[in-house]
Amino acid sequence: MWIQREIELEPRPRGFHLVTGEIAGALPELGELRTGLCHLLLQHTSASLTLNENASPDVRRDLRTWFDSAVPERFPWTHTLEGDDDMPAHVKATLTGPELTLPVRDGRLALGTWQGITLCEHRDRGGPRRVVATLWGEPR
Amino acid sequence: MWIQREIELEPRPRGFHLVTGEIAGALPELGELRTGLCHLLLQHTSASLTLNENASPDVRRDLRTWFDSAVPERFPWTHTLEGDDDMPAHVKATLTGPELTLPVRDGRLALGTWQGITLCEHRDRGGPRRVVATLWGEPR
Amino acid sequence: MWIQREIELEPRPRGFHLVTGEIAGALPELGELRTGLCHLLLQHTSASLTLNENASPDVRRDLRTWFDSAVPERFPWTHTLEGDDDMPAHVKATLTGPELTLPVRDGRLALGTWQGITLCEHRDRGGPRRVVATLWGEPR
Repeated sequence: MWIQREIELEPRPRGFHLVTGEIAGALPELGELRTGLCHLLLQHTSASLTLNENASPDVRRDLRTWFDSAVPERFPWTHTLEGDDDMPAHVKATLTGPELTLPVRDGRLALGTWQGITLCEHRDRGGPRRVVATLWGEPR
Repeated sequence: MWIQREIELEPRPRGFHLVTGEIAGALPELGELRTGLCHLLLQHTSASLTLNENASPDVRRDLRTWFDSAVPERFPWTHTLEGDDDMPAHVKATLTGPELTLPVRDGRLALGTWQGITLCEHRDRGGPRRVVATLWGEPR
Repeated sequence: MWIQREIELEPRPRGFHLVTGEIAGALPELGELRTGLCHLLLQHTSASLTLNENASPDVRRDLRTWFDSAVPERFPWTHTLEGDDDMPAHVKATLTGPELTLPVRDGRLALGTWQGITLCEHRDRGGPRRVVATLWGEPR
């Protein structure tokens, strides 16, 4: 069984945002898989995907604070035409990565108790973000 | 052929630890695959997985030194309730990533000569860590 | 359908280099897949793979500048036998990661408009680099 689909994530401000529900809600066929995998590619170079804490919003705020501090806007960048937040966004995107592969078991994503799919939006106005989702495995 | 299984990695102190043997030993069905893949998801947000040098323990020590320096415990964190090593652990986990996909060829993981599966334990007392392993591909 | 093959990337100097064409050119069977995935493992621990901007060379230059600044050669490293650029290379490789999984749709890699497969060469003289490529999915 193979399913491949584009999902458009709604625009979000700079920061780390939980999108587990938005992703899983767009993939009802997850329920048809007994054992399989779900791959997500964010088709952008100034935003990224990670798994991190799904409960405390403090963690997501601190993630942003650290990344903004480690990859500052004031730095000897040469690529500056697209705005102060652009080149830091490219670096942060490569540090966190554009894609995730997640196990599926008995019709659900087999994440840890505290893990949530997290959109890392590194631009101030990144707009909607597109994900190519691919599901494959053994049907129930 | 699809195999999916939880593997519990034994508790380890903060640092970078080779776990190739522990993982492969828990997946004897690797030997049945001619061409395929092995996916590993660590179900935690304060530890992570990487591939790095499997020979010199110096490399693993220096990895820890750099990460502890780049993501310090003294920082304007707001999420501090779970201990000084908690929020740095979440950042380090997102920098290194919770999952790996590895090629399988003729019954073995097709890693480079110097590559080893490395558990990045970012907590002082992280306890046992759980991995969901998924194998799929063409049988021999 | 399963295809697995080693690809040798030509030697490149330290920096970030677009290799989408070199990779796709070595995988003509991409054209035979309707829906599937392409997995790439770089079998080294001092170079890595990422997706980033495929147009402006400024972005690739700035990526190098930031990584060289964040992971400097002057640092209390203990693993120094293989040269000043070696231990920073191991850290940078773990920050960016050795592998990518990419969706395939209608015979082509389904990357974003601005995404290119990027070899992150962290050594001054890394030599040729080996990738294990695995393709699988539904034929057209």
